[in-house]
Amino acid sequence: MTHHRPSVKRSVVKRFYVDQYVDRILAGDRVVLSRAITLAESTLPADQELAQKVIQRLMPHTGHSVRIGITGSPGVGKSTFIEAFGNLLVQEQQKKIAVLAIDPTSQRSGGSILGDKTRMTSLATNPAAYIRPSPAGKSLGGVARNTREAVLLCEAAGFNVIIIETVGVGQSETMVHSMVDFFLLLLLAGAGDELQGIKKGIMEMADGLAITKADGANLTKAKQARAEYQQALHLYPLGAAGLAPQVKICSALENTGIAEIWQLITGFIQHTQQTQFFTQKRQEQNLFWLHQAITTGLEDQFFSKPQVQAQLNDLRQKVASGEISPFLAASELLNMVG
Amino acid sequence: MTHHRPSVKRSVVKRFYVDQYVDRILAGDRVVLSRAITLAESTLPADQELAQKVIQRLMPHTGHSVRIGITGSPGVGKSTFIEAFGNLLVQEQQKKIAVLAIDPTSQRSGGSILGDKTRMTSLATNPAAYIRPSPAGKSLGGVARNTREAVLLCEAAGFNVIIIETVGVGQSETMVHSMVDFFLLLLLAGAGDELQGIKKGIMEMADGLAITKADGANLTKAKQARAEYQQALHLYPLGAAGLAPQVKICSALENTGIAEIWQLITGFIQHTQQTQFFTQKRQEQNLFWLHQAITTGLEDQFFSKPQVQAQLNDLRQKVASGEISPFLAASELLNMVG
Repeated sequence: MTHHRPSVKRSVVKRFYVDQYVDRILAGDRVVLSRAITLAESTLPADQELAQKVIQRLMPHTGHSVRIGITGSPGVGKSTFIEAFGNLLVQEQQKKIAVLAIDPTSQRSGGSILGDKTRMTSLATNPAAYIRPSPAGKSLGGVARNTREAVLLCEAAGFNVIIIETVGVGQSETMVHSMVDFFLLLLLAGAGDELQGIKKGIMEMADGLAITKADGANLTKAKQARAEYQQALHLYPLGAAGLAPQVKICSALENTGIAEIWQLITGFIQHTQQTQFFTQKRQEQNLFWLHQAITTGLEDQFFSKPQVQAQLNDLRQKVASGEISPFLAASELLNMVG
Repeated sequence: MTHHRPSVKRSVVKRFYVDQYVDRILAGDRVVLSRAITLAESTLPADQELAQKVIQRLMPHTGHSVRIGITGSPGVGKSTFIEAFGNLLVQEQQKKIAVLAIDPTSQRSGGSILGDKTRMTSLATNPAAYIRPSPAGKSLGGVARNTREAVLLCEAAGFNVIIIETVGVGQSETMVHSMVDFFLLLLLAGAGDELQGIKKGIMEMADGLAITKADGANLTKAKQARAEYQQALHLYPLGAAGLAPQVKICSALENTGIAEIWQLITGFIQHTQQTQFFTQKRQEQNLFWLHQAITTGLEDQFFSKPQVQAQLNDLRQKVASGEISPFLAASELLNMVG
């Protein structure tokens, strides 16, 4: 179709009309859903414009899912857990689940991509499950935005449980926390050393904790860890929902404890829906993303200006070393373009 | 002096020349220090320009202090602790200390202003101590920036321990965390209920914890709380400095445990200076404030535009309710002024 045209920078995706995207996504067409997510990930202005139109048309069909963030350091068994959890939801709860990943390092770390289909084989082949790896080669802000839009698109396509995975060692968790209804932290028993991979602050973000690999010789250790964490959590502030985080143990291998985690989550959702916290949090999250998108837009405009780029490195060095006050340097840069 | 001039919006402070500020601050003149801080708090462009010149001239004389953040919920005895701690530093360690406060609610809450001189009577009258309440009637960002600049001015005036106080129940702690070398959280024994006033996330920011009011009948409870917190902290990630937070007990009333807290802080500072973490963190903080000041400046410009103001409330409501995608709303606003 495009070979008659002169060579221009082309979109990486085949484009449809807005109506085609909307109708097919609402009909649950996974291929078109994937293309729409790719379209929204594209930075070409024409793609962006089209993607925004599609998302806007789909907005009335979004929001009707349970959004769950799941994190934990490498080795905790995230993919295995999500596979067992997802299979339970699909097979026993008649849910349609989408698994999205936020991993800004995914391009560099190669094989360690979360949400990697090859690591969730039984789930990946289930028609009621949709797995999408992290967008590659983007900043955290870009990845987060893409994931946020993917959530909306998946909801419009009829997925009613959305799982967002992160590695738990970076800055991604704050972003995920700002787009989910429940934030689950996976931990290994015999903690301490393992925890050093987890970034500070994540423990306190969690609405619930699950000790994984609670099977065989590990079971006793897992139960002990559960008691220790439960006790420790009493010393920490309650979550914003006014509920103390619960600690569960589970084994994806023996398929135990997985249903209890789903019960924990649904109980939390029901409670927060009754107290209006659920709606209020969703509204705050929407406003957070509005503010985030505005700030990102303003920063992109600002930092791409040639005058700013010409001065920035020099000023950053002087600010870092304490030679110039950060506020003076900021005014100088702002005045330069203002 | 000004009564010959026509009525114009006047600065709230008597202005000196840059040289006068610089010379007198370097000479440790507390009156001029106070005026310079007030000047930097002023939003009048002429005051701002002058303040920035003064701060810039003083930059080579800044940075040589230990910056300590202290937080805890109301009732924990912050003022009493700081008074005992400050008196120890002044009397036994020959330090010159400045106590600054970050409390964006101070105007509303009236008497509860942290750093209130009337609550630290013995310290306030000591010539080696300088106490400055939170700037009033400002946003958190404004208060934080003012405090950051006050730190620099106090350092130039020869204060070598700077204490920044917050209430521990708001958003201020992230800001304080970004301007101190050591972050101390004060807690009461018999925790749980008391902790509910503490905002989630603060526990994990702390480099050290101190159980206050460990005296009389409270002592046993305080020791027990220390053991419980110490154990709980083992289950949490280590701080960025690679050190596990220590828990101390103290009594301002009986003046016990206060010196141990100073030892904890100096030990931490020495360790982080050896590992270069200290310098690296200071540099990162400087860059954080550069970025923060740029973002705030861009946002101020943007949100004060009439076109934006005309649309913002309506768009915010539509975004909050999920009627419009936050990203589309952001593009619309950005395009409107772009």
